Amino acid sequence: TLMESTTIIENKIQELLKNFEFVRQSTEHICSFLEIEDYVVQPIADVSPPKWHLGHTTWFFETFILIPNLKGYKVFDPKYNYVFNSYYETVGARVIRTDRGNLSRPSVSEIYSYRHYVDEHMRLLFKDVSAQSELKDILELGIHHEQQHQELLYMDIKYILGHNPLFPVYSDKKVFDEIIREQVKELSFSEGVFEIGFQGEGFCFDNELGRHQVYLDAFEIDPYPVSNKEYLEFMEDGGYENFRFWHAAGWDWVNSNNVKAPLYWYFIDGQWMVFGLNGLKEMEGKQAVCHVNYYEAAAFAAWKGMELPTEAQWEIASKSLEWGHRWEWTQSAYLPYPRFKKAPGAIGEYNGKFMVDQMVLRGASVATSKGHSRNTYRNFFKSHQRWQFSGIRLVKSLT
Amino acid sequence: TLMESTTIIENKIQELLKNFEFVRQSTEHICSFLEIEDYVVQPIADVSPPKWHLGHTTWFFETFILIPNLKGYKVFDPKYNYVFNSYYETVGARVIRTDRGNLSRPSVSEIYSYRHYVDEHMRLLFKDVSAQSELKDILELGIHHEQQHQELLYMDIKYILGHNPLFPVYSDKKVFDEIIREQVKELSFSEGVFEIGFQGEGFCFDNELGRHQVYLDAFEIDPYPVSNKEYLEFMEDGGYENFRFWHAAGWDWVNSNNVKAPLYWYFIDGQWMVFGLNGLKEMEGKQAVCHVNYYEAAAFAAWKGMELPTEAQWEIASKSLEWGHRWEWTQSAYLPYPRFKKAPGAIGEYNGKFMVDQMVLRGASVATSKGHSRNTYRNFFKSHQRWQFSGIRLVKSLT
Amino acid sequence: TLMESTTIIENKIQELLKNFEFVRQSTEHICSFLEIEDYVVQPIADVSPPKWHLGHTTWFFETFILIPNLKGYKVFDPKYNYVFNSYYETVGARVIRTDRGNLSRPSVSEIYSYRHYVDEHMRLLFKDVSAQSELKDILELGIHHEQQHQELLYMDIKYILGHNPLFPVYSDKKVFDEIIREQVKELSFSEGVFEIGFQGEGFCFDNELGRHQVYLDAFEIDPYPVSNKEYLEFMEDGGYENFRFWHAAGWDWVNSNNVKAPLYWYFIDGQWMVFGLNGLKEMEGKQAVCHVNYYEAAAFAAWKGMELPTEAQWEIASKSLEWGHRWEWTQSAYLPYPRFKKAPGAIGEYNGKFMVDQMVLRGASVATSKGHSRNTYRNFFKSHQRWQFSGIRLVKSLT
Amino acid sequence: TLMESTTIIENKIQELLKNFEFVRQSTEHICSFLEIEDYVVQPIADVSPPKWHLGHTTWFFETFILIPNLKGYKVFDPKYNYVFNSYYETVGARVIRTDRGNLSRPSVSEIYSYRHYVDEHMRLLFKDVSAQSELKDILELGIHHEQQHQELLYMDIKYILGHNPLFPVYSDKKVFDEIIREQVKELSFSEGVFEIGFQGEGFCFDNELGRHQVYLDAFEIDPYPVSNKEYLEFMEDGGYENFRFWHAAGWDWVNSNNVKAPLYWYFIDGQWMVFGLNGLKEMEGKQAVCHVNYYEAAAFAAWKGMELPTEAQWEIASKSLEWGHRWEWTQSAYLPYPRFKKAPGAIGEYNGKFMVDQMVLRGASVATSKGHSRNTYRNFFKSHQRWQFSGIRLVKSLT
Ligand SMILES: [Fe+3]
Ligand SMILES: [Fe+3]
Ligand SMILES: [Fe+3]
Ligand SMILES: [Fe+3]
Repeated sequence: TLMESTTIIENKIQELLKNFEFVRQSTEHICSFLEIEDYVVQPIADVSPPKWHLGHTTWFFETFILIPNLKGYKVFDPKYNYVFNSYYETVGARVIRTDRGNLSRPSVSEIYSYRHYVDEHMRLLFKDVSAQSELKDILELGIHHEQQHQELLYMDIKYILGHNPLFPVYSDKKVFDEIIREQVKELSFSEGVFEIGFQGEGFCFDNELGRHQVYLDAFEIDPYPVSNKEYLEFMEDGGYENFRFWHAAGWDWVNSNNVKAPLYWYFIDGQWMVFGLNGLKEMEGKQAVCHVNYYEAAAFAAWKGMELPTEAQWEIASKSLEWGHRWEWTQSAYLPYPRFKKAPGAIGEYNGKFMVDQMVLRGASVATSKGHSRNTYRNFFKSHQRWQFSGIRLVKSLT
Repeated sequence: TLMESTTIIENKIQELLKNFEFVRQSTEHICSFLEIEDYVVQPIADVSPPKWHLGHTTWFFETFILIPNLKGYKVFDPKYNYVFNSYYETVGARVIRTDRGNLSRPSVSEIYSYRHYVDEHMRLLFKDVSAQSELKDILELGIHHEQQHQELLYMDIKYILGHNPLFPVYSDKKVFDEIIREQVKELSFSEGVFEIGFQGEGFCFDNELGRHQVYLDAFEIDPYPVSNKEYLEFMEDGGYENFRFWHAAGWDWVNSNNVKAPLYWYFIDGQWMVFGLNGLKEMEGKQAVCHVNYYEAAAFAAWKGMELPTEAQWEIASKSLEWGHRWEWTQSAYLPYPRFKKAPGAIGEYNGKFMVDQMVLRGASVATSKGHSRNTYRNFFKSHQRWQFSGIRLVKSLT
Repeated sequence: TLMESTTIIENKIQELLKNFEFVRQSTEHICSFLEIEDYVVQPIADVSPPKWHLGHTTWFFETFILIPNLKGYKVFDPKYNYVFNSYYETVGARVIRTDRGNLSRPSVSEIYSYRHYVDEHMRLLFKDVSAQSELKDILELGIHHEQQHQELLYMDIKYILGHNPLFPVYSDKKVFDEIIREQVKELSFSEGVFEIGFQGEGFCFDNELGRHQVYLDAFEIDPYPVSNKEYLEFMEDGGYENFRFWHAAGWDWVNSNNVKAPLYWYFIDGQWMVFGLNGLKEMEGKQAVCHVNYYEAAAFAAWKGMELPTEAQWEIASKSLEWGHRWEWTQSAYLPYPRFKKAPGAIGEYNGKFMVDQMVLRGASVATSKGHSRNTYRNFFKSHQRWQFSGIRLVKSLT
Repeated sequence: TLMESTTIIENKIQELLKNFEFVRQSTEHICSFLEIEDYVVQPIADVSPPKWHLGHTTWFFETFILIPNLKGYKVFDPKYNYVFNSYYETVGARVIRTDRGNLSRPSVSEIYSYRHYVDEHMRLLFKDVSAQSELKDILELGIHHEQQHQELLYMDIKYILGHNPLFPVYSDKKVFDEIIREQVKELSFSEGVFEIGFQGEGFCFDNELGRHQVYLDAFEIDPYPVSNKEYLEFMEDGGYENFRFWHAAGWDWVNSNNVKAPLYWYFIDGQWMVFGLNGLKEMEGKQAVCHVNYYEAAAFAAWKGMELPTEAQWEIASKSLEWGHRWEWTQSAYLPYPRFKKAPGAIGEYNGKFMVDQMVLRGASVATSKGHSRNTYRNFFKSHQRWQFSGIRLVKSLT
């Protein structure tokens, strides 16, 4: 009945509002370990200043929920749209991305005020039950959007601290739970037609929709991601010096950047050290290798005589895999699923316009927010990028 | 029997040798319309000087056939390996690509001497029947390699002349046969499991092998490529001014390059003119649009509410399509087919190492050499490139 | 007698130590108006983060005075040499200049601790009377060095705030005393041999030494620098659109950067606004024009049918000029005076190695520290730079 | 009387016309050693394709003499103005400099036709005695302009051949007369007021005018330029590895370009070889060092404990010097002489607009056209440039 479904939606909204409070708080918790100065810098274009993430996630709620829906809402500062719009052409001009680290203002404390101002007004808006049901989707998207930026915060903070000559420690306490590789047999899958893509209740991004059939040949897949120790064997076998394992573009990248190891690995006094949020530590062989790009993942697979999985292979096998500690490079380019449709308006710019020149990563990482992972999730980065928490999974064709 | 199969191979070799002579001659015919000066320049990194193509295709036969197989063969000039190696790491150092247009020597006439010297020695080598059977594959590859460079010659010559302020005419005679779009119904295909990839006798590149099954949803496909007239409608409807049709990377490309039309279109005195090998001519609406990149193809499809085909859709439908006049952008990234294996040695560098960050084009173009097209052929370029003879085919999902 | 001269030196040292305390305090006063975030950013390579200036001036005293002279001195942090060395090859490796704004650490508060630690040890060292006389010169240089960085702090802070879309105010109180142009006659000087260069007691930089004779033709010079109003006339007369007034390099600069006005001028709602440390204000016609580069200064002079002074003309005329509000571009390149000698060791890197590809500016500006200006002072910047407080003085040849 | 002076001018014109014929022919003689391909390429932005020089010098006569003065003159090709204008804003749009090597057309033979067409019309024009006297200056300038481009032709041809991996030989015959250093005493000059700048009959460029007085301290000057042997001692003493000898900008240049020797020096099989127009030859110690830039010249002088001359020192001493084999770097920036005035119109763009960010070279080189050198000639290049025939002269201050 209508009444029942209204109740369901109301419950859903109540749950979302709880999530909203939790997610907004979690973001601030992540930043609570920072010095003010750490919020400001942008050492490379890919990395955004933490204070920008704090403002941008807030701007998302202000722009897409408060302004169109809360009567009489007064924007916190009319210039913030220019500062905190990421890439929405629909919503007007914006600071060019590479300038984000040139802005000392708004200050960190002004941005926290902005957050709390918007949070207050969100609570106000959602007291009004009548408007709620139609805002469910955008509220949910806003929450997931902020969770994505939580992972970006970890990535960017790690980059900022890990490229400082003083190697500052983010926290002395354990930040992430790591997995330890065990020796297990590879899993086999027979050929056939399978279905992939999201279905069912719950949230997903538009790029996961269009559940569809795919034909797969038989394959074997490793239940664990590749470990640091295995990757070190590749390095010690001359992996970075032998063009045969590399794509032409990857080989250029290795040579123009004089790459010898994954990001954050430093060879100091005869020992491989790895920078993490606890500071510079000895490399641990049993942990999953992290911060490699697609070129490195593919070169490693070539050296091993194996392959990276396609995203369909990964998704079909996922139930049997140990996953969630590294975003795993697939051998699939980021392209629309059959029947993919952009949403109308600014939200249509969320995913679709990036579906070119990038590769899909599947799984999730230690830095992914709780409740933000699904086995249909399609993450994507450029082949050369490696500041995300990315690792390697191997497959072998059985035909 | 062994004897029969020897005869078959001998016949095959004889046929290849005839092709060899024909292809070598055709390359020189393409260049016979040039001034010496036209052989030398390299206006952008993508374009190679015609004289480089003449030398490089010759170097291929010298390096991979004569040197390892013709006893007592003396290389024409030991420095040519450095000048004419394109990208084979296996074969040693080489002039960096962007320097090709900085080399006035070897002169055009020296390169023709080089060609004829190598041709002579090829004939000498293949008089010796005993060595032939094992050279069949590499000879065939060398011929197809030179055919690929014949199309590149047309592309590069067109670029060189078409970007000269004097707009020089390559030839006054008709160079290419164009197709004229007719009004016909779209073709429908039902969903199901199909097979794609090369099979059977005859030549193919390694990237077409690994015939395999794919699942396709039902779709409709246009029997003709998009015409200039249709593309002009997109332009006149503000196609290049509306970010909504474009990938983010495409929109950046449009704006940083101030793009308003396909390559070689010039708006002069209130009229769209198009540069071709016959010089600057009025745009012909019924011809297939040419020299658009992936961003433009995808934006056009988005404007039309349709899509680009995947390479599987294209291949399955190909028998019913009017194709061969434009390389048609597909919505498939250039990635290895299942069970793709690189050949050992330098030949393994032919295709595999480029399987990243590029898109597949299917079909063939007016500039493709006769006998060099197949419906399994996988051509590939970067999303932003458009100096190849590329066009647009549209599909629509039926589910 | 020896004793007398010892007393003189002691008095000099006591005076210097007072200056030291005053200068160290003044630097911190300049920064006291900043938010923590303002200390961190580096919007262009020329600009250094304010916290870097705080550390670098301190590092100068630590490196050149404390380490070699204070027995048992323990450096504050051994990694700071890498972070705060500006350009002294003699003193080892350093953060590349463009990375200064990528470093969130050391934090502002750590750098203040560093300052106070070094100040304490400076006081300790100078309690020991015996070591003092030989440290006089380097102490004096360190003080003047910090004064130079005080002006750089004003320049860099202005750039940081003035390029922020929020246009933050540095202070609501008056920061600088401006001069108002008066209508006065030009001053005439007859031809002859004159002497320029520093002489006498007191401090000067090595580049002012080598007092020497120069021959000057007769000339007239304007007692006042060019005003905003005069510069606006140039702008309104199409100064930025007419190549005839510009050097070829200047014309390129105008066009590649689409320049229309001096730095910090913004045309808003039909009105020229100028950003200053008090925020965005209406342009004041009577003030001296500021933040123009050599190309602009020379173009303005050409438009006016006059010239920029040589540094000799400027120095000879200086006693009769109203100067000290703008660094005034001269028509002299920054080259060594006759008999210029580099000091041995690291201090030799202070000035000499920059004597190429730059122009001399004479005078001083509103942002120059009290006691840091002399009429023999040779400041220098590249022709295209204009974030310093630079203006224009005009001369006319009388022959 | 008027009649006498008319006769003088007529004689002058007759002499100029003879020069015109000679200079036009000499340019073609320089190019007669080239292959067609050598006329086309532009390996770096500084170098222009030889065919461009052929066209540009012709365009100068067509644009500044024929078009405004020869009634009914029909331009050879209206598009050539766009192709062959070098930098004259007054005369309209032009091919950007870096694109000169991208143009295969006009062909070499078309450009020779252009030359001969213009030469014919020049002869026609100057048959008409009445128009001659007012064209004397521009005719003379055009001749000197072409002589400047003759030296540029040598520079650019040397660069093109000397950067080709085949090291092609321009000519087997001797091209230039080299000087051999002799051991002689340095020359002394006393302090005093001297005059520099052009005076008297004959041609000079506008930048030499404004003869004026300068005061010079006493100095010693080496009668010979520095030899290869002396420069090699600098190299072997670690000259390129010791920052102390270098300007900061020079040290950056050395390190970013990994410079170890002058341009065209190649260390092959344990031996320094030098590329010249006769091909690659053993370095000859007694010849004057060539192809060094200002940074290298200044570093050599610093290593030697001496200095580069100012242009006034050079000019005053010139009568006693062995000069004319190398353009000699001075320690003077290229700035206007007192009372320098730009000519009105396009000719005013000839010199004045380059008077910034460059250094003066004095003398002449083996590649300078006969009759084109004067001891008041002010040549100029950027500090980092060294493809001109530049060398080093040393002075020492005597005060
Ligand atoms: Fe976002
Ligand atoms: Fe090839
Ligand atoms: Fe400093
Ligand atoms: Fe010229």
